[in-house]
Amino acid sequence: MGNRLELPYALLKSKDYAALRLALAEENEVDIAGFMDELPREQAMRVFRLLHKEQAAEVFAELDGDVQEHIISAMGDEEIHEIIAELYVDDLVDMLEELPANMVRKVLKNTKPETRSLVNEFLQYPENSAGSIMTAEFIDLRKSMTVSDSIGKIRRDGAESEQIYTCYVIDDSRILEGVITVRELLLAPDDSRIDDLMEKKLITAKTTEDRELVAQRMMKYDLLALPIVDLEGRLVGIVTVDDVMDVLQEEATEDFERMAAMSPSEHPYLKASVFELAKNRFPWLLILMVSGMITGGILGRYEAAFAAVPLLVSFIPMLTDTGGNAGSQSSTLVIRGMTVGEIESSDLFRVLWKEVRVSALVGAALSLVNFGRLMLTYPDSTAISITVSLALFFTVILAKTVGGLLPILAKSLKIDPAIMAAPLITTVVDAISLVLYFSLAQRLLNL
Amino acid sequence: MGNRLELPYALLKSKDYAALRLALAEENEVDIAGFMDELPREQAMRVFRLLHKEQAAEVFAELDGDVQEHIISAMGDEEIHEIIAELYVDDLVDMLEELPANMVRKVLKNTKPETRSLVNEFLQYPENSAGSIMTAEFIDLRKSMTVSDSIGKIRRDGAESEQIYTCYVIDDSRILEGVITVRELLLAPDDSRIDDLMEKKLITAKTTEDRELVAQRMMKYDLLALPIVDLEGRLVGIVTVDDVMDVLQEEATEDFERMAAMSPSEHPYLKASVFELAKNRFPWLLILMVSGMITGGILGRYEAAFAAVPLLVSFIPMLTDTGGNAGSQSSTLVIRGMTVGEIESSDLFRVLWKEVRVSALVGAALSLVNFGRLMLTYPDSTAISITVSLALFFTVILAKTVGGLLPILAKSLKIDPAIMAAPLITTVVDAISLVLYFSLAQRLLNL
Repeated sequence: MGNRLELPYALLKSKDYAALRLALAEENEVDIAGFMDELPREQAMRVFRLLHKEQAAEVFAELDGDVQEHIISAMGDEEIHEIIAELYVDDLVDMLEELPANMVRKVLKNTKPETRSLVNEFLQYPENSAGSIMTAEFIDLRKSMTVSDSIGKIRRDGAESEQIYTCYVIDDSRILEGVITVRELLLAPDDSRIDDLMEKKLITAKTTEDRELVAQRMMKYDLLALPIVDLEGRLVGIVTVDDVMDVLQEEATEDFERMAAMSPSEHPYLKASVFELAKNRFPWLLILMVSGMITGGILGRYEAAFAAVPLLVSFIPMLTDTGGNAGSQSSTLVIRGMTVGEIESSDLFRVLWKEVRVSALVGAALSLVNFGRLMLTYPDSTAISITVSLALFFTVILAKTVGGLLPILAKSLKIDPAIMAAPLITTVVDAISLVLYFSLAQRLLNL
Repeated sequence: MGNRLELPYALLKSKDYAALRLALAEENEVDIAGFMDELPREQAMRVFRLLHKEQAAEVFAELDGDVQEHIISAMGDEEIHEIIAELYVDDLVDMLEELPANMVRKVLKNTKPETRSLVNEFLQYPENSAGSIMTAEFIDLRKSMTVSDSIGKIRRDGAESEQIYTCYVIDDSRILEGVITVRELLLAPDDSRIDDLMEKKLITAKTTEDRELVAQRMMKYDLLALPIVDLEGRLVGIVTVDDVMDVLQEEATEDFERMAAMSPSEHPYLKASVFELAKNRFPWLLILMVSGMITGGILGRYEAAFAAVPLLVSFIPMLTDTGGNAGSQSSTLVIRGMTVGEIESSDLFRVLWKEVRVSALVGAALSLVNFGRLMLTYPDSTAISITVSLALFFTVILAKTVGGLLPILAKSLKIDPAIMAAPLITTVVDAISLVLYFSLAQRLLNL
C-alpha cells in the first residue's frame, strides 16, 4: 500500500522502542494500522502495546481482521475490556463477524452487558443489509427541546456518538419525527424550539433494505447520515457517510469481478490465497468453456463450407471478436446504468430503440471499412467480401441488441444483471454470428 | 429515474398552479429537480417560477445542464442575480463549465464582483483536478481564538458556508496551520484555546492533484472535507464528501466504459445522443477489428493443417474464448486493485507469481475436464484430445500471466491501465493461443 511509515519502521528495526513510542504518537491512526498490517504479527503486537490508550482503540478498529485476531488472542481480559469499551458498536460488530467462535466468546465476555445485547441484535441483520452497516451511537432529541437545550445535550453526550452533526428527533416510543443538523442548531437563536426548526420530510431506510440502495439514497440527497428505522418507524440506528463510501467502493469492485466472470472475492487481491482466487475463477471459466464447445459444435456443421473455401475460416476471429466487443459495450453501459439507478426495467424499449440505431451506425461504418480492406486484399473475391461485410453488419446489430436487452431481462427475472456481462454476451453472440456467417456464405457463395 | 412526483404531476396536468405551489413546498429539492428534468422545458420553467425563493436556488443547483441553460435564457437579469447570489461557488462553476459563451456572459454580469473573480480563478483549474471540484466557502479560524470565540464565529458566518463541520486554522498569510472539527469544539470547555485543541497532523491535497486521489485520501482517513492548498501551503478551498462520492461514482463508471473498450461518455446513457454513443464506441471496435484481422491472418498460415484435420477448427472458439476469459479475469482484478490503491507498479513480481500459480491450478482443472470430455466424444482421437487439452492448459497460463502483467506495465508507461482490459487482452491472447494450438497440432499430429 506504500504507506510504510519511514521513521517508525527504522526505529522498530533498531529496537529503539522509547523513540518509537514518541514517533507513533505523531502519526495518523489509519497510517499506523496500515503500517501494522504489513508487519510480522509479533512485531505488530509490540507496536500495538506502544500506542497511547486513546490511539490504541482507533488503530485497532482500522486493522485487518487477521491482525485484530492475533492481538485479541495475545491480550488479557483487562486489556481487551479497555479496547472494546472504546470501540463503536459497528466496528465491534464488523470485527466479531470475522473472528473465530472462541475469540468471539473472549471478546463478548469483556463487553459491557448493554453493548453485548446491542451487538447480538446487530449480528442478526442479513449480510449487505442497512442493518448490517448501521451504528447505534447517535444524538436523539425531543421536539419540545430548545436550541440551547439541544446544544447542551450534544456537548454532554457527543463523546459517545460516532456522528453528532445530524440529530434525530424521536417521541416516547422512539418513533422518528424529524431530523435537525448541528448546522441548523448553530445558526438558529438559542430559544427556538426544535419542533419549529426540524425537517419533517424524512428520508430513511429500513433495516432490511440493501446497503447499496442506502448508499444511492445518501448520495442522491447529499446526506452525511441516514436514519434506519424498523417496520414500525422506530429509530434503531444510523448509517454514516464514511461507511457508505466503503460500500460504494466494495460494490463497484464486486461488479467488476462479476462482469469479468468471477465470484466476488472475500479478500483484496494481494491478500487472497491462490486457492481462493482459483476457486472464484474456475466455475465460470468451466461454464464458458462448455459454451465454447457448443459454438465449436456449430462450426463443425459447416465443415463442408470451409473445406470448399478455407479462406472463410480466417475471418472467424475478426467476426466473433467484433461481435463480442460490440455486445459487451452495450451490456456494460446498461448494467452500469442499472447499478447507478439511471436505467430501469421499464426502459426496455428505450434501450432497444437506442441500441438498434447506434448499432446500425457503427455496424455500417465497420462493414464499409472491412469491405474496402477486403477488396484491396482480395480483388477477385467480391462475393466473399460481400459475405464477410454483410455478416459483420448483422453481427454488430445483433450483438448490441442482445447486449442491451439481456441485462434488463435478467433484472426482470430477479437475476443479477452483472452476469450478463462481456463473457456471457460473447458466448451468445459467437454462436449467433457463426450461424449467420455460414448461412450467408452458403447462400451467396452457393456452397 | 422513477422519481416523478405523483401529486405535483397531477396538479401540473390539471393546471392548478396554486395547489401545485403548495405541493412543491412539501417536496425535497433533489426530487423537484429530478421531476423538472423530465418535463418539457416550458413546463419546467413554469414549475420553477412557482418555487419559493429559498427552494429555487437549491433546486437550480441540482438541475441538468440543459434545463439550467433554458431557465437562464428565459430569466431576466434581476431574477438571475437572485438565484446566483444563493448558489455556492462550486455549483456556479459546474454550471458555467457547461453553458454556451453568451449565457456565461449573462450569468457573470449578474454575479457579485468578488464571486466573479473567484469563479474565474476556479475555471482555470484543469479538468478532474482537486481545484475543479473544490468549494470556496468554509469557516476559517485563528489559533489564538477560544472555543467560544470560534463557536460564535461559526454561528455568525456559517450560513455562507457549504460545510461548517470542519474548520480550518490559518495564519495571516492564509497558510494552513491546523484543523478542528465542530465536534471537538462542542466537546471542549468554552475557554480552551484553538491552538491547544487543533489537529496539527494535516491531511491536505494540492489544487492540481487528480480528483480521484483526493477521493481515495478522504475515504482512507474517513474525512468529511479535505483542505486544498496551493504550492505555498496557503488554503484555497475545500473538497466536501458529497462531491467526492459523486467523483467515486463517476470514475467507476468511466472505468467500466474504458474496460469495455469505449470512450467515457459525457452524458448518462439515456440522455446521450445516438451519435455520441456511436462515436464513443466506433474507434475501439475498429482497432479491435483490425487486430482480429491480424489473428485471422495467423489462422490463414495454418490452412494446410485444418484442411488435413478439419475437426481442429471446431476447437478454436473454445480455446480463444477460454483464453480471453481467463486473461480478462486477471486483468480486471489487477486494474481494479490499482484503482483502489491496493496494487502498485512495484508489486509486479508478486502479481506474476500469484497468477502463475492460480493459472496452473485453473488451467490443469479445465484441461482435465476438457480431456475427459474429448475422450468420451472422440474415443479414437487420443492425439487430438491431447493436443487440444495441452493447448488449453498453456493458453490459460499465458492468458493469466499476460492479463496480470499488461495493466501494470501500462501504468509504468503512464498509460491508463484500464485500456488493458478484456477486449485488448482477448485480442492478444487469441493470437498467441492460435499459434500455440497449431504449432502443437503440427508437431503432435505430424501435419
